Amino acid sequence: MKLKTLAGLCILGVASSSVMAAEETNPYIVHRQGIYEVASGHMEALKSIIMLGHPAKADVNYHATAMLEAFKHHGDAFPKGSEQGKTRADAKIWSDSAGFKEKGDAAGKAIMELIAASEASDEAKLKEKFFAVGKSCKNCHDDYRKKKM
Amino acid sequence: MKLKTLAGLCILGVASSSVMAAEETNPYIVHRQGIYEVASGHMEALKSIIMLGHPAKADVNYHATAMLEAFKHHGDAFPKGSEQGKTRADAKIWSDSAGFKEKGDAAGKAIMELIAASEASDEAKLKEKFFAVGKSCKNCHDDYRKKKM
Repeated sequence: MKLKTLAGLCILGVASSSVMAAEETNPYIVHRQGIYEVASGHMEALKSIIMLGHPAKADVNYHATAMLEAFKHHGDAFPKGSEQGKTRADAKIWSDSAGFKEKGDAAGKAIMELIAASEASDEAKLKEKFFAVGKSCKNCHDDYRKKKM
Repeated sequence: MKLKTLAGLCILGVASSSVMAAEETNPYIVHRQGIYEVASGHMEALKSIIMLGHPAKADVNYHATAMLEAFKHHGDAFPKGSEQGKTRADAKIWSDSAGFKEKGDAAGKAIMELIAASEASDEAKLKEKFFAVGKSCKNCHDDYRKKKM
């Protein structure tokens, strides 16, 4: 059973495009990286539509909503013990949890504003709100994500 | 305006954890990579829950359903002209489109079976169906994804 499990993880490691989490086994680290990867994927799709001219304009609302939905499934994403391993989570997440929460809340607010903008048809506003979400990601990464693993 | 757009893309490039799509500007390539990244993120989260003991068992259905939902938003993901650029899409996708579609359909079916399994409480079945989805990803990557970009 143990061997079968390892073989399965190997298959998934090869199948997955996520290099970061391929070998990590701490469930909290893998889970949160999965959620962030979902969010990053939706940002890429949004970039293709809002910035690069992909025709799926009707999907902006879906991607923005799905990104928020993913974060709602984050749960207790940074419990004690999950600071070590294949993770870029900076120690400041634990030493300055209030500041970290504030940046997370700001990102959530930015996504909600993007969702609201996607319900109107003002392209300039949509770009502005999309940029604001990207900025809210960067704001948190700057302070709470290590430059390297 | 052009400069502002570029600056915005730079911010997003830094903010995004997706290295693959950071500089590509073909909207179809960026869009499909975003969708695959969403799927990969859900697979990571599912791995953490099903294989590594993350406690969010109630979220298996959410992740499996959201993965299928992402693929439903793929649209015309590999149009002519999107074979060149920062992409690992193999030429076989276009030369053997029937075979490629078959592998894609098999992946969709595997995800639907995972969703069905998530509605019961049979952990062995859940692992089996989760492995089957991972295998369906790998089956397609083996034949239709370049080893390197």
